[in-house]
Amino acid sequence: MQFVLHEVLDAAATLQGAGIDIDIDTIDGVIEGAGDFCARVVAPLNTVGDRDGCRLVGDTVVTPPGFKKAYDQYVAGGWPAVDCDVEHGGGGMPSTVGSVIKEMLASANPSWTLYTSLSAGAYRCLNANASEALKRRYLPNLASGKWTGTMCLTEPHCGTDLGLLTTRAVPADDGSYRISGTKMFITSGEHDLAENIVHLVLARTPDSPKGTRGISLFVVPKRTIDSAGTPGDRNGVYCDSIENKMGLHGSATCVLRFDNAVGHLVGEVNKGLAAMFVMMNGARLGTGVQALGMNEVANQKALTYARERIQSRAPESRRTPNQAADPIIDQPDVRRMLLTQKSWSGGSRLFLYWLALQVDLRKSSADPSVREYAEDMLSLLTPVAKAFVSDRAVDSASLGMQVHGGAGYIADYGAEQTFRDTRILPIYEGTNGVQSHDLLQRKVLSDGGRRFKQFVEMVSGYAQTLDGRQEMDLFRVALITLAGEIDTLVTDLARWAQDDDCRVGTSAVDFLNLVGYYVLAYFWARAADTVLQLGDQATDFHRQQLAIARFYFDKLLPDTFSLLVRARSDTRILMDDAAIAF
Amino acid sequence: MQFVLHEVLDAAATLQGAGIDIDIDTIDGVIEGAGDFCARVVAPLNTVGDRDGCRLVGDTVVTPPGFKKAYDQYVAGGWPAVDCDVEHGGGGMPSTVGSVIKEMLASANPSWTLYTSLSAGAYRCLNANASEALKRRYLPNLASGKWTGTMCLTEPHCGTDLGLLTTRAVPADDGSYRISGTKMFITSGEHDLAENIVHLVLARTPDSPKGTRGISLFVVPKRTIDSAGTPGDRNGVYCDSIENKMGLHGSATCVLRFDNAVGHLVGEVNKGLAAMFVMMNGARLGTGVQALGMNEVANQKALTYARERIQSRAPESRRTPNQAADPIIDQPDVRRMLLTQKSWSGGSRLFLYWLALQVDLRKSSADPSVREYAEDMLSLLTPVAKAFVSDRAVDSASLGMQVHGGAGYIADYGAEQTFRDTRILPIYEGTNGVQSHDLLQRKVLSDGGRRFKQFVEMVSGYAQTLDGRQEMDLFRVALITLAGEIDTLVTDLARWAQDDDCRVGTSAVDFLNLVGYYVLAYFWARAADTVLQLGDQATDFHRQQLAIARFYFDKLLPDTFSLLVRARSDTRILMDDAAIAF
Repeated sequence: MQFVLHEVLDAAATLQGAGIDIDIDTIDGVIEGAGDFCARVVAPLNTVGDRDGCRLVGDTVVTPPGFKKAYDQYVAGGWPAVDCDVEHGGGGMPSTVGSVIKEMLASANPSWTLYTSLSAGAYRCLNANASEALKRRYLPNLASGKWTGTMCLTEPHCGTDLGLLTTRAVPADDGSYRISGTKMFITSGEHDLAENIVHLVLARTPDSPKGTRGISLFVVPKRTIDSAGTPGDRNGVYCDSIENKMGLHGSATCVLRFDNAVGHLVGEVNKGLAAMFVMMNGARLGTGVQALGMNEVANQKALTYARERIQSRAPESRRTPNQAADPIIDQPDVRRMLLTQKSWSGGSRLFLYWLALQVDLRKSSADPSVREYAEDMLSLLTPVAKAFVSDRAVDSASLGMQVHGGAGYIADYGAEQTFRDTRILPIYEGTNGVQSHDLLQRKVLSDGGRRFKQFVEMVSGYAQTLDGRQEMDLFRVALITLAGEIDTLVTDLARWAQDDDCRVGTSAVDFLNLVGYYVLAYFWARAADTVLQLGDQATDFHRQQLAIARFYFDKLLPDTFSLLVRARSDTRILMDDAAIAF
Repeated sequence: MQFVLHEVLDAAATLQGAGIDIDIDTIDGVIEGAGDFCARVVAPLNTVGDRDGCRLVGDTVVTPPGFKKAYDQYVAGGWPAVDCDVEHGGGGMPSTVGSVIKEMLASANPSWTLYTSLSAGAYRCLNANASEALKRRYLPNLASGKWTGTMCLTEPHCGTDLGLLTTRAVPADDGSYRISGTKMFITSGEHDLAENIVHLVLARTPDSPKGTRGISLFVVPKRTIDSAGTPGDRNGVYCDSIENKMGLHGSATCVLRFDNAVGHLVGEVNKGLAAMFVMMNGARLGTGVQALGMNEVANQKALTYARERIQSRAPESRRTPNQAADPIIDQPDVRRMLLTQKSWSGGSRLFLYWLALQVDLRKSSADPSVREYAEDMLSLLTPVAKAFVSDRAVDSASLGMQVHGGAGYIADYGAEQTFRDTRILPIYEGTNGVQSHDLLQRKVLSDGGRRFKQFVEMVSGYAQTLDGRQEMDLFRVALITLAGEIDTLVTDLARWAQDDDCRVGTSAVDFLNLVGYYVLAYFWARAADTVLQLGDQATDFHRQQLAIARFYFDKLLPDTFSLLVRARSDTRILMDDAAIAF
């Protein structure tokens, strides 16, 4: 983390340049404190959360043993507020630091962490869209962690296609609304950790237009709040059931029934979807960070097992020449799996921390061109951060199981729990198919490739600075070559899409993966560059990063050869109705 | 199934040519009967098996509700014996028909099916290696399903590396042995379905050589058997615990403690590993068939969901022009997922049924060159059948979840159970890494590529017969091109491996995947060929198979471009110790 922040990305200086008062020591202090909290308080509850899960008892959800106590400690330590604004009682730390903490929480215990992670999104959504009165009522309590947040979009008949939603919001005489309808897949929709829950709910007012243009955003508390801001009686929000899921058993995924629940409009009528997307985009970046944390822990577990498990002679038997067998870490195929995990986790970290810096620059920079650039990069790359990083985390968790052999399939080692917990990431907050469509259609083709060219030009500009440094040739040549191939592909896809409505859907997933490989190639090149510039000052840790970067370019980046062809596959073959006749 | 057996592979005629008395109607009758049994009796227990799982109660394992009754019906119907020899009370049906039944059982309920599938392996292993007295005692009861079998290899400290095993077998005065030691991951090691369990156990006699040359095979019954062949008291075999697994909850995976258990030697002392490999190779092919069945069911579930789930407008909105949304099956990316599943399941079926025919030819053909060819193909391609087909089944089960969106992650739709159940396949019966090593080292490089060239020549010979048929150009060109590229790769790998002990391990997994894509390309080409030769006689079903074949060549086979490069990746980069220093 420190290598990425301080040595590769020069985060403190970047943030200072945007007028944020931070230095390396402050960042390191927060990271170390958070690491200690995660290791001591949060991680030990990961197994029990999976084993005991949540139970719906009466009108509340009972979380696994220890979750409440850990949450109280989290609140007492001031962690929820670290990157909230000072005026709401927050620590005012940059998002970049918040992302590092979120990564560690996800490594330690992804189920428990979900109770905390939507509060930050609700905070930001209300902060961006709500009236001052609503902000005063909700933001300090969300920042402190006294209350938690939810995001209520999905209904039984609509998930991806929110235009179909039917939850109703009827105006009351006092300016509030009465919300009725059923929402499902609501993470932390009900639980026993906090005194109140702040639901952000999409619903339709009477006579609103059909489709997505008739959706408004409401804030609906679990307990109604009196004029002094104190929670009182239960509002008309009922948890009818919780889902029996593949993983994340410690996280309550709720079906919520709103029955004349008192709510308040956030922002303008019929502008709810845009307001909610402030939260949704944050949640998508957050999913990437979760994925990073889970990838990291999958690798750490596999690495430990591979060092300890003695089985078969390794080809070169370097470690234990007089023994009957060696640690499996010296088997080339086990190395392949471990280094693949490390490539994805390390590369994702470089990418996501850089994106987190863009969040801070967008918010704080005095320079409009810096803010605009940050906004462009965030809108372009958020779907890549969500989809590519989460797909690779699932791959990594699966490799982690595979390194364990038979032990990977049983509960005792935790590898299978990490895999089950990780598998939701490509699904929620918009499936990875939806992300791919968003990237190709709305982020690349819609502006004639403007934002995308900006990114490619940055990468190619960087690659050109490496000219003449032979040690960087491997990286430079690959980056330049790939940029040319992707550029040609984008041009072709844009042309084809003009008279083929299925083209985007046919190519989108392969295109997103291609971009993902390219993005990580850029960041691994920068990491390698950073190490090589250290010369004799490089430590063992630095040499490790260089070795992983080389592995990434040698073994993984060749996947782009396939993706470049697959992305051009034939729409008519894919959409031949004969193929799905049975 | 009938398309593959009768139209593409001409199975009945092939079997008749080897002197096996069978015809199409007989095959179809057995398949239809088995399909009915699976649908009516076995499939309905799949969910309860996952939910209730197995329990260790006292000295036995209680299987999920309904499992015993279904097993009794299975025995009463004569299903265990279908492909056992007539002399042991079996039906004498060819392995090819047995494989079709196994596929359906695995689709219906993989946990329940595991209680049946090791019996066939134990039957074949004893049939090939045991004395006549042991055969008389065990084979009829295994064939009838009255008793079930196990395969006891793994110990806590040894799985892949059986040379490390320590279970002891001490000779007794009566010619039997006393077996002591702990075996783990024993599928169906204890259960309440049958009156006896026949354990095939690897152990060491006193003073046996170290490593794999000192391993002998023993048959150890759960209950000792008197001279009349009737089971009596419990033998010294104890189930100490059952594993808490990611999936296959209905299948008991046991830790077995052998404590002076009475056993008998099977075959010769110190030749146990070779004898066991009769069973192991069958289990590896069987894992491929299981994977096929689970891939198929994952696709069927996803297809049903994709037809029923109405969400968003599809690009061409062909089905419901006046509605707000279309079935998601008309989204190109959903088609991609469904057709990928279909490519893997249909291609795996062609491949595995062809291999099953080789099993029958090896056993029954009067022509030694046919038998030898079949043996060559089986030894070459068994690791591909195990590893490639199981990896693709996991991919397919994961795609099946993804098609379901959020519904894929919750228990209600069954997609996540199929995924959890499938995830063991790349691990057990030798991990897919081990299979890859076996393929490249022992099956391809060890004989100078003789067996592999035989297969490639068969494929290329077939491809040349397509010359001049423009409709088959797509398939012909790809098969010929790929053969040349793989041939060059094998030559390079053989040369490099001479002075690089890590080369095989570095390239093995990519090489196996490459071969897998190539094998399925051959079979999909034959399927397409079969359909195209039908001309106007082709039905909708036939046109579907042609459409899937085209999709496979257009969208999936391009993955070989990457694999060809990855397989050449740099051993020194992979094995750079700096990369795993942390």
